[in-house]
Amino acid sequence: MAPPRVLVIPGDGIGPEITRATMHVLERVMDRYGVELEMRYAEAGDTAAEKYGEPLPRETLALAKNWADVVLKGPVGETAGIVVVGLRRELGVYANIRPARSLPGVASVAPIDLVIVRENLEDVYAGIEFSVPGAAFAVKVVTEAETRRVARIAARYARARSGRVTIVHKANVLRVADGLFRSVARKVLEEEGVEVDEMYVDAAAMEMVRNPTRFDVVLTMNQYGDILSDLAAQVAGGIGLAPSANLGDEKALFEPVHGAAWDIAGKGIANPTAMILSAAMMLRHLGYQEAALAVERAVEQALEEGYSTPDLGGSLTTMEYAKAVTEFLG
Amino acid sequence: MAPPRVLVIPGDGIGPEITRATMHVLERVMDRYGVELEMRYAEAGDTAAEKYGEPLPRETLALAKNWADVVLKGPVGETAGIVVVGLRRELGVYANIRPARSLPGVASVAPIDLVIVRENLEDVYAGIEFSVPGAAFAVKVVTEAETRRVARIAARYARARSGRVTIVHKANVLRVADGLFRSVARKVLEEEGVEVDEMYVDAAAMEMVRNPTRFDVVLTMNQYGDILSDLAAQVAGGIGLAPSANLGDEKALFEPVHGAAWDIAGKGIANPTAMILSAAMMLRHLGYQEAALAVERAVEQALEEGYSTPDLGGSLTTMEYAKAVTEFLG
Ligand SMILES: CC(C)[C@H](C(=O)O)[C@@H](O)C(=O)O
Ligand SMILES: CC(C)[C@H](C(=O)O)[C@@H](O)C(=O)O
Repeated sequence: MAPPRVLVIPGDGIGPEITRATMHVLERVMDRYGVELEMRYAEAGDTAAEKYGEPLPRETLALAKNWADVVLKGPVGETAGIVVVGLRRELGVYANIRPARSLPGVASVAPIDLVIVRENLEDVYAGIEFSVPGAAFAVKVVTEAETRRVARIAARYARARSGRVTIVHKANVLRVADGLFRSVARKVLEEEGVEVDEMYVDAAAMEMVRNPTRFDVVLTMNQYGDILSDLAAQVAGGIGLAPSANLGDEKALFEPVHGAAWDIAGKGIANPTAMILSAAMMLRHLGYQEAALAVERAVEQALEEGYSTPDLGGSLTTMEYAKAVTEFLG
Repeated sequence: MAPPRVLVIPGDGIGPEITRATMHVLERVMDRYGVELEMRYAEAGDTAAEKYGEPLPRETLALAKNWADVVLKGPVGETAGIVVVGLRRELGVYANIRPARSLPGVASVAPIDLVIVRENLEDVYAGIEFSVPGAAFAVKVVTEAETRRVARIAARYARARSGRVTIVHKANVLRVADGLFRSVARKVLEEEGVEVDEMYVDAAAMEMVRNPTRFDVVLTMNQYGDILSDLAAQVAGGIGLAPSANLGDEKALFEPVHGAAWDIAGKGIANPTAMILSAAMMLRHLGYQEAALAVERAVEQALEEGYSTPDLGGSLTTMEYAKAVTEFLG
C-alpha cells in the first residue's frame, strides 16, 4: 500500500518555525516506528495572498483536494477566515475535535481533561450573509444530516472515554435553530447508547472555568465551539498547547488552535507544542497509534522535566524544545 | 416631583428569597438617604406560566410598559428566554451593562475590573427563525442605528472610566454582519474621542481568563455579550455577584446575571449580592448616586469582613447576609 499523503501548509507568522520543529519530531518518530508518509508542502495565508493574489491559492487547494489524504497546517494570519473556513468547507471536514487537557509541569487554571467536538461547516460559518442600506444579516444554518453525523463522531469519542456527552446550545432563545441541533443530537447520542446532558452556552463558559472536570465530551455548534475551545485551551494552560483535528469522511485537516502570532514571528521562541500534538492526532488518525502515543508521551515528559519555551516560563528556543521532545521519544 | 416608579418582579427559584433580601437593604438605604420610590410587585416566569398560562402575563407587561419607570427583576427559570428577551424588546432597553469586578474577600481567578456593554435587541436574539424539513435557520441582525446608539453608551462608560473600549466581534468570518457592527462602532467611538481597539470573540474569551485587566469597557454583540459576561462574572468570583442594567432611552431593567437556581430554592442560602448590586445600579440610574455608592460600599465591606453565603464559603443565610450588608450602610 502506498504511504499516506500529507500536505504540509506552514502558514504565516510563527507557522514556518513551528512547522520545522514539528517536522523534526515527526521525522524522528517515523524513523523509530517505521511510519512512512509521503509529504509535500504548499502555501496559504497572508504571505501567499501577497505573492499570488489569493490567500488560498488554486494549487494548494488542488493538492489538498486531489492529492493529499490529510493536511497538516500551521496558523495563518488575517486571511485565516478565508483559508481555514475555505479548507474546511472544500475538504468537507465536518467535525472539529479539540481536546483540552492539563499537562504535567504546566500551570492550569483548573484541572481539565475534555474533548470539544465542534460542528465545523454550518452555523453562522455557512457563509450566508447579505445587507441592505443600514443593516446586515447572517444566516445561522442547522441541518439534521450534519447534526447527525457530527453527533455520531461525539458518540465515538465518548465511548473511548467516559461515555458522557454534554450538548451545548442556546435553545432557550434560539428555539428553532439550536432547538433542532439539540433534539437531533440528543436522539443520535441516545441511540448510540452514551450518557447525555445539556448546558446553555453561557453557563458552559462559566463552568469551563469553575468546574471543567464536569465535562468529558462537549458537542456543540460551530461558533460556540470556536469560543469554548479557546477558553478551554486557556484553562488547560495556554493556547500554545492546543491541537485540533478536522475530520471528514474522506479527508482530515490537523492544525494548532492558535493564530499566527506575528509579534513573535521569526524570533525562534514560539511554542511548537500545539502543532506537534496536532501531528500526533494525525498519526493516530492514519492508524499509527503507537507513534501518536509516543509523541504525546514525549511532549508530556519534556514539559514535566521543565523543558519549555518562554510563553510557559522557560527559556528554550522553538528548536531546542523540539529537540528535547525528540530525546523523550524513546 | 412624583417618586420614581419601580416594578419589582421576584421571579422563580431563588428569586423571591433574594428579592426579599434586596428589599431589606433597599428599604434601609432609602430611609438613610431620603430616597423615595413607589413600588409595585408583579409576576413573571415559570410559576406565572403555570398560574396564568403565560410566562410574561399581560398585566405584568402592561405595568412594566405603562406604569413603571424602571423594573427590578429577579431570575426566571426555563421560561427566561421568553420573559427576559420579551421584556428587553418590549421596553426597548438596547444596552445591557454588565460590570465584572474582583471584590475584597472573594477569591477571583484573576484581578478583573471591566464593564461589558452588550447590544441587547439584535443579533440572533432578534427572533427571526424558520425551518424547512431537515433544516432550521436563525437570522443574525445588525443595524447601523442600533450599533450607533449602543456604541454611544459604551463611550459614556469609557469616559467615566479609563477612556478605552475594546470592540469584540468575529469579522474575520462574519465579514458582512460583524463587519458592519465593527466599522460603525469604531466610527462612533472615534467620534466620541475614546481610545478603541478590537478583538475576535474567541481570543476575547481566552484573554478574559489570561489577562482580564487588559479590558476596560468591552463593546460587543448580543450573544457574544451573553457568553462573555457569564465568563467575566466567573473570573470575578462567581455569578452570584454579577449585577446588570438594561438601558433604553425611556425605560430601564435591572436584574442579576444568574438564573433561578432551583436546586437551592427555598433553602434560604442563596447569595443575594447580584440582585442587591443590581438595585444599586438602579439607584444610580435614578440619580441617587450616594445611595448607590453606599450599597456598593456596604456589600464590599460585608464581604471583606468575611460575611458570606455558602456559595462563597460562608455560612450565613440569605437574610443574615442582607442584614450584615445593612449594618455597613453607615
Ligand atoms: C481563524 C478562524 C476562522 C478560526 C475559526 O473561527 O474557526 C479559528 O478561530 C479556529 O478556531 O480555528
Ligand atoms: C435567560 C437568557 C435569555 C438571558 C440571555 O441569554 O440574555 C441570560 O442568559 C442573560 O444573560 O441575561
